[in-house]
Amino acid sequence: MNITHPFRDEDGDKLREECGVFGAINASDAAAATALGLHALQHRGQEAAGITSFDGGEFYQRRGLGQVAENFSSSEAISELPGFMAAGHVRYSTTGGSGLRNIQPLYADLASGGFSVAHNGNISNAGTLRQELVGKGAIFQSTSDTEVIIHLVATSRYPTMSDRLIDALRLIEGAYALIVMTPEGMIACRDPLGIRPLVMGKMGDATVFASETVAFDVVGAEFVRQVEPGELVKVDFDGNIDSLHPFGNHSPRPCIFEHVYFSRPDSIFDGRSVYAARKAIGEQLAIENPVEADLVVPVPDSGVPAAIGYAQQSGVPFELGIIRSHYVGRTFIQPSDGVRHSSVKRKHNANRALVEGKRIVLIDDSIVRGTTSMKIVEMMREAGATEVHFRVASPPTAHSCFYGVDTPERSKLLAARMEIEPMREFIRADSLAFVSIDGLYRAVGHEPRDAACPSFCDACFTGDYPTPLTDLANRERRDAQLSFDKVA
Amino acid sequence: MNITHPFRDEDGDKLREECGVFGAINASDAAAATALGLHALQHRGQEAAGITSFDGGEFYQRRGLGQVAENFSSSEAISELPGFMAAGHVRYSTTGGSGLRNIQPLYADLASGGFSVAHNGNISNAGTLRQELVGKGAIFQSTSDTEVIIHLVATSRYPTMSDRLIDALRLIEGAYALIVMTPEGMIACRDPLGIRPLVMGKMGDATVFASETVAFDVVGAEFVRQVEPGELVKVDFDGNIDSLHPFGNHSPRPCIFEHVYFSRPDSIFDGRSVYAARKAIGEQLAIENPVEADLVVPVPDSGVPAAIGYAQQSGVPFELGIIRSHYVGRTFIQPSDGVRHSSVKRKHNANRALVEGKRIVLIDDSIVRGTTSMKIVEMMREAGATEVHFRVASPPTAHSCFYGVDTPERSKLLAARMEIEPMREFIRADSLAFVSIDGLYRAVGHEPRDAACPSFCDACFTGDYPTPLTDLANRERRDAQLSFDKVA
Amino acid sequence: MNITHPFRDEDGDKLREECGVFGAINASDAAAATALGLHALQHRGQEAAGITSFDGGEFYQRRGLGQVAENFSSSEAISELPGFMAAGHVRYSTTGGSGLRNIQPLYADLASGGFSVAHNGNISNAGTLRQELVGKGAIFQSTSDTEVIIHLVATSRYPTMSDRLIDALRLIEGAYALIVMTPEGMIACRDPLGIRPLVMGKMGDATVFASETVAFDVVGAEFVRQVEPGELVKVDFDGNIDSLHPFGNHSPRPCIFEHVYFSRPDSIFDGRSVYAARKAIGEQLAIENPVEADLVVPVPDSGVPAAIGYAQQSGVPFELGIIRSHYVGRTFIQPSDGVRHSSVKRKHNANRALVEGKRIVLIDDSIVRGTTSMKIVEMMREAGATEVHFRVASPPTAHSCFYGVDTPERSKLLAARMEIEPMREFIRADSLAFVSIDGLYRAVGHEPRDAACPSFCDACFTGDYPTPLTDLANRERRDAQLSFDKVA
Amino acid sequence: MNITHPFRDEDGDKLREECGVFGAINASDAAAATALGLHALQHRGQEAAGITSFDGGEFYQRRGLGQVAENFSSSEAISELPGFMAAGHVRYSTTGGSGLRNIQPLYADLASGGFSVAHNGNISNAGTLRQELVGKGAIFQSTSDTEVIIHLVATSRYPTMSDRLIDALRLIEGAYALIVMTPEGMIACRDPLGIRPLVMGKMGDATVFASETVAFDVVGAEFVRQVEPGELVKVDFDGNIDSLHPFGNHSPRPCIFEHVYFSRPDSIFDGRSVYAARKAIGEQLAIENPVEADLVVPVPDSGVPAAIGYAQQSGVPFELGIIRSHYVGRTFIQPSDGVRHSSVKRKHNANRALVEGKRIVLIDDSIVRGTTSMKIVEMMREAGATEVHFRVASPPTAHSCFYGVDTPERSKLLAARMEIEPMREFIRADSLAFVSIDGLYRAVGHEPRDAACPSFCDACFTGDYPTPLTDLANRERRDAQLSFDKVA
Repeated sequence: MNITHPFRDEDGDKLREECGVFGAINASDAAAATALGLHALQHRGQEAAGITSFDGGEFYQRRGLGQVAENFSSSEAISELPGFMAAGHVRYSTTGGSGLRNIQPLYADLASGGFSVAHNGNISNAGTLRQELVGKGAIFQSTSDTEVIIHLVATSRYPTMSDRLIDALRLIEGAYALIVMTPEGMIACRDPLGIRPLVMGKMGDATVFASETVAFDVVGAEFVRQVEPGELVKVDFDGNIDSLHPFGNHSPRPCIFEHVYFSRPDSIFDGRSVYAARKAIGEQLAIENPVEADLVVPVPDSGVPAAIGYAQQSGVPFELGIIRSHYVGRTFIQPSDGVRHSSVKRKHNANRALVEGKRIVLIDDSIVRGTTSMKIVEMMREAGATEVHFRVASPPTAHSCFYGVDTPERSKLLAARMEIEPMREFIRADSLAFVSIDGLYRAVGHEPRDAACPSFCDACFTGDYPTPLTDLANRERRDAQLSFDKVA
Repeated sequence: MNITHPFRDEDGDKLREECGVFGAINASDAAAATALGLHALQHRGQEAAGITSFDGGEFYQRRGLGQVAENFSSSEAISELPGFMAAGHVRYSTTGGSGLRNIQPLYADLASGGFSVAHNGNISNAGTLRQELVGKGAIFQSTSDTEVIIHLVATSRYPTMSDRLIDALRLIEGAYALIVMTPEGMIACRDPLGIRPLVMGKMGDATVFASETVAFDVVGAEFVRQVEPGELVKVDFDGNIDSLHPFGNHSPRPCIFEHVYFSRPDSIFDGRSVYAARKAIGEQLAIENPVEADLVVPVPDSGVPAAIGYAQQSGVPFELGIIRSHYVGRTFIQPSDGVRHSSVKRKHNANRALVEGKRIVLIDDSIVRGTTSMKIVEMMREAGATEVHFRVASPPTAHSCFYGVDTPERSKLLAARMEIEPMREFIRADSLAFVSIDGLYRAVGHEPRDAACPSFCDACFTGDYPTPLTDLANRERRDAQLSFDKVA
Repeated sequence: MNITHPFRDEDGDKLREECGVFGAINASDAAAATALGLHALQHRGQEAAGITSFDGGEFYQRRGLGQVAENFSSSEAISELPGFMAAGHVRYSTTGGSGLRNIQPLYADLASGGFSVAHNGNISNAGTLRQELVGKGAIFQSTSDTEVIIHLVATSRYPTMSDRLIDALRLIEGAYALIVMTPEGMIACRDPLGIRPLVMGKMGDATVFASETVAFDVVGAEFVRQVEPGELVKVDFDGNIDSLHPFGNHSPRPCIFEHVYFSRPDSIFDGRSVYAARKAIGEQLAIENPVEADLVVPVPDSGVPAAIGYAQQSGVPFELGIIRSHYVGRTFIQPSDGVRHSSVKRKHNANRALVEGKRIVLIDDSIVRGTTSMKIVEMMREAGATEVHFRVASPPTAHSCFYGVDTPERSKLLAARMEIEPMREFIRADSLAFVSIDGLYRAVGHEPRDAACPSFCDACFTGDYPTPLTDLANRERRDAQLSFDKVA
Repeated sequence: MNITHPFRDEDGDKLREECGVFGAINASDAAAATALGLHALQHRGQEAAGITSFDGGEFYQRRGLGQVAENFSSSEAISELPGFMAAGHVRYSTTGGSGLRNIQPLYADLASGGFSVAHNGNISNAGTLRQELVGKGAIFQSTSDTEVIIHLVATSRYPTMSDRLIDALRLIEGAYALIVMTPEGMIACRDPLGIRPLVMGKMGDATVFASETVAFDVVGAEFVRQVEPGELVKVDFDGNIDSLHPFGNHSPRPCIFEHVYFSRPDSIFDGRSVYAARKAIGEQLAIENPVEADLVVPVPDSGVPAAIGYAQQSGVPFELGIIRSHYVGRTFIQPSDGVRHSSVKRKHNANRALVEGKRIVLIDDSIVRGTTSMKIVEMMREAGATEVHFRVASPPTAHSCFYGVDTPERSKLLAARMEIEPMREFIRADSLAFVSIDGLYRAVGHEPRDAACPSFCDACFTGDYPTPLTDLANRERRDAQLSFDKVA
């Protein structure tokens, strides 16, 4: 989402999905449904939320820092968003004054009328396009990559709105799932490879779109199908639904990490239950990397489904060896008398009475920087575990994502810095193993990975990026030039 | 805690522990440790928090509505609370202006110097004592029952502080775990029956007290022992620890609901791991009330340990058939297009792909008003479950608590209104069963219940209240009088 | 108001009246009238405001930091204060959390029912009385001297409320204008010498009380008479008005500084228009201290009426040589390029085009610490004034007030530190003169001051305090004792 | 400033200057000086304030609703605005979320670098230009007329920044005083007629610009000269100052209402002291419209200088017959017992003791809608005045302003609706008179008005607008068309 900082160095030791989107058209309470839908997608972005609505005449907008419930649960908030069409967005963002203008949906008054866009993904040539547009006199309101789309639409010479949007998207590289609103209706679309997810549903006469099916469950809508990679779905105010495929045929590459961690377990992604996929990954992990142990212990909460699968496959009992607090949030002042690592303890505490004297298998979904894994292994040992075996329900994460996921810089990724045995030493486990990439493909219901034509975007594991990365290449060229200048 | 409203009619369908307390003396960062300790006890009260500290000369206090992290995580907040002794409190409270003065610890300047008290429990003759004190010219600052203790201490004729406190407590009925601070040190004490919990720990040279052992884990302290029922533990600034037992011998009656729901599973209560107790209750439940089924599904999160026990005992696999959202909080405006009961869905969503076509056993810790249970059964059926069997890891909750637990009025308790078969019909399950009171005693490591001398306070199940309920009796006498007046 | 800090060292270079009170009984919108009345008294205290109301059954209260308009202008605020009796208070106060409990009216539940008191003045033996009460077990909620009254009433053995109040007031020294509310009605009273003002009015069937008559103008009430020194006026809910004089005969000593500065010019104080009194002081000043000059310039706004009087008497034209900004408030960061004293310039700016090349007479109401006077003289010189003559519409302020006025410590008062000629040098004026004490008495319509029996409290000018100052004497005795100890 | 609502129907019964601007370049604390300068201009706009600074590399911006002191008095705020160049703006604005993006200075990243503009005035063809720009693909961030300037600059083909700005300004009609910042320095300019004021000063090595000279007094700068009508003053970072006159020769038409009401009396406008001008208008008024009376009473505060002039000329004594409260702000709930018109009384109260039984001459600067005048006359009568003569220090205000002044719609202007005698009846005065337009010109130091070539913009009195009003004409044409359509 942010063209300037694709990386982020944060306390959190997880990859973070950067956005969720929801839209509803021909719904009598479009904004209320959108608020509820976004709330169900809150795990996809917790730092800012926005909703734009349209009542046939005017567009209305409300955006704010913080969670959906803080901004959109009151009747006052919803009553400021009248109309039968609405779309919303949740995102991670940097805090601070300038942040507000980057909160989506972005909106502009074009010559053809109002234009609103909510975007999940990242445009990998946004910086280059922006520079060209500014050179022609365009004035940008935000630092968001998404605003490039609006300026391209505004300056397109095509007569109809959908042609102008297609014209704009042809110039764009990278990943996008978009919900666009104009005075003629709603357009939902996905990039040609379908890197980011987008699904379509039905709620009475209303058509709804969302990043995940769980949003449909919560608003009471019915899941119809996914928006296909490269598809534009147009819905007008008479309920006509049109499907366009303007970008030709591409072999889809949806993000496999949606199965590993991003999506909620009660969502259906790529035609498969996420919970079932995670359990299957756990089973595959048990088959590939068995170990003699007394307890299978999930790192809560994301490791739970894989741990259940691992336990059922291995016969080792599943137990809550780590208790997670529901009250986290801020960092506390540390008392100087305190024992080490209590910041981890605020979130996770060892179930000492259970763990003491036991050999345990810890199951987590992934290892990013490894610092949390190290603390959790240590916590198990302090609680008296005699052996700690770490099993990871994804392959080693060794590459950054440029498609809308907040990853640490590559040099901070543990798997980019070392092989598995040094990783084991780093986290101080008795053994460490990851599911294989082929095992992962199999667990999510596909054939083993075909390197010539993989069925997912798995660049974070393989480094095989499915699109050009123009901004990155330009930056590297510029940096190289700078080094050369210094040398010469 | 609140003398006027022992009952509370709320959306939440759980009994709610009303308070948690934490204290530290001879600690170099007493307030920082207390903040962290209270944070670990946040599940015992989320609506207000307060800390009082003492630096050898002055007392300092900070209290606020909201969670511990909102009020005590900044260094500014902690730096306003200097000193080597501190105590804090978390509570449920009604919001609003007058609420602030009821937030504990309560503090008063007595002739003998400052006096601070943090109280978990409820004084069942507070109204009667308050009336007498006001008649003698006492002016109350709050509507809290706890303030009665301060006025009794202030007007006691005994010379030493501990004698004055004992003099006050002799007049008091009900449940209390107290942490008192005076310029001479800290006094921790429990009512003669030990209804509410209180434990003692050690952190270097510091002595710490808390409602639950989990607070010791989080601050890095070592669990020493529980404060005994009827015991006063005095700690002075030289580290001398004195134990007094001024109330004679009583057979203890700790609250059995701490095992069922209140305490965190990683705490040790009454000498036993709460997680182990809950698993054992689940096992006992499977023995007493088996059923043919495909899946054991916990109502998250409190039903999880019992469900694991039930699954291990019965051999039916444990699965996450209900996914809980971590982003709850406020009620949203309902879109009129939405399906019924989406307020439950915001918290809990069916894992439809798993549940469909299956016979499931739902495990919950208790049934209070039954409304949530009904919605969850319905959610399972809508997701395609063919049979839904409800199993409850406690006996029917048929009586209100007057000892510091927020219970609905008796008439709102489902088990006070009907037998088990009508309850089953009300929640629309295929079968419904509760663990027996004897099974519960056994699961928590005791002999079956001895009606002549039960080893717990189990009044919520049995109606057998271990202390007089003077205020309630006076209120009933007054109401009866009023009825009589109307008749005559 | 504050028993611990009678002095205050502040930026402001004015004596500050510490409080204003307003009450209404038998008024259909008592709280709304009280809010409006307090707003008219805002100049008497701008840092906190409170209102208590009574609807025949319950008392309601709302208090807040800041001005009346910030706390009581919304319909929500007023609707929280139902009933036909209300009283309110504006005050100066120190900011911060603990401040809230000192905001008046103070309220307590006594055995006889609710008791609310709003107090303008200061009790000069409050510390001594408080110590005695705490020794008997009383628990104080605030650090306010006013709370002593409540505890004395609560522990009085007299049967009726007015007897209990009189019993309490007999023990009290100092200055007080009180508005008390009980379930039987309203009691307004003034200390035996009538040091602080209190007036009575009529608004339809309602009876109203206020510190100044301007409040009656603003709410649309009619001024009836002042509450007499030593008088208690009781008003019940049938509209019966009773007058008691329980303290015997005393020769009144109202504060003469109300005429000089505290009261608004459109108020009637002690039977005389404050505007007329100030003009007369200006005329007297011109008679006593004439000077050849081109312009009479008031220090805005408090010096304006005296300047008009001076100009009319002397024939020198009145002109706005200093322009006051209406937007003051906070201190700004000073740019380092800035000229000196711009903090004064933010409030007052020289009207350079007018002043340049002129001999001017500056008129101010008083000199407290002299720092502002010095800056204003300098500002006139920088603007090109050829001569600057300073004339002051009160005698030299050489003594602290202990009756509810915020005065700097005596050592900070310019007139306590030096004679008139050194004062002139300090403020760098060409000449300096003050009105004489006899001239002041004459200007406000009285005979010249009779030292044996002065008709005003003029202690700030003369050091002649009309009541004992017990707390001060005890403090000095203790300090002397400490010094003695050190010597011995 | 706002292209959509040139009119505004508000409680305030004054014309309101809509903006003030201040800029400083080559100043070591540019933002601190700007904050102080804006504070001195606060009377020109109290609802929002903004400052942009430049440190040689980056631009920084902070804007907020409310007064300057609320947004820019803290060292944190100023430290967010580093650099040696800064410019700021105060304005009236509609409140609410969307308001923030209209707060000036407006800023954009152009191809040539950052561009910031602060604008006092109104562009009378902004709507027409905006429509053309949007048609070419421009995306507007705000609803402000000022943004048109930025887009015209962004799309200009000229190579240098000052040429691009001149190119843009050539397309613009109406009134503007601008402070522009670019990475090359600061440009200050005034429209060809100089309708809105702008002055230039010196502060050590720094150059400063402001709407009024009072800002220079407050920051400690020296007044150098006004920016001439049609002049662009360019200042670079070496301190070079260039003057351009790209628009040819025009006869200036500065706004005469600056003398009447907008400017502070201690400012120098058009080469003359505003205080002296106002006194001279009062004298002229006394010559043109004498009356037998006992007192001359100003309507505070704006009527004071004219009242002093009137009193000195007529020999009738100047007295404060109306006392103004310094604590206004919000509207209070009216008690139903209250007398009529207390909303006026909250601001202004009759000095009854003075007024009673007197014949008074009320002096005000202007009459806009007449409602306040009517209430003030009534207040004087209720206070016992025997005769009330109203004298106005400007001609009748009969026309709306389209040059950046907030005027009511023409139909709400009393003088647009009726002649002088009906106006007198409306406000219920015994007599009513205005200064003549020629008298006004004379009093401000000019020859009587030459209708062929007036030396001021006096359109509010005469309806003689000095520029085309393209947007208004288009709107009227459209409205006429609509009426025609309905008829046909």
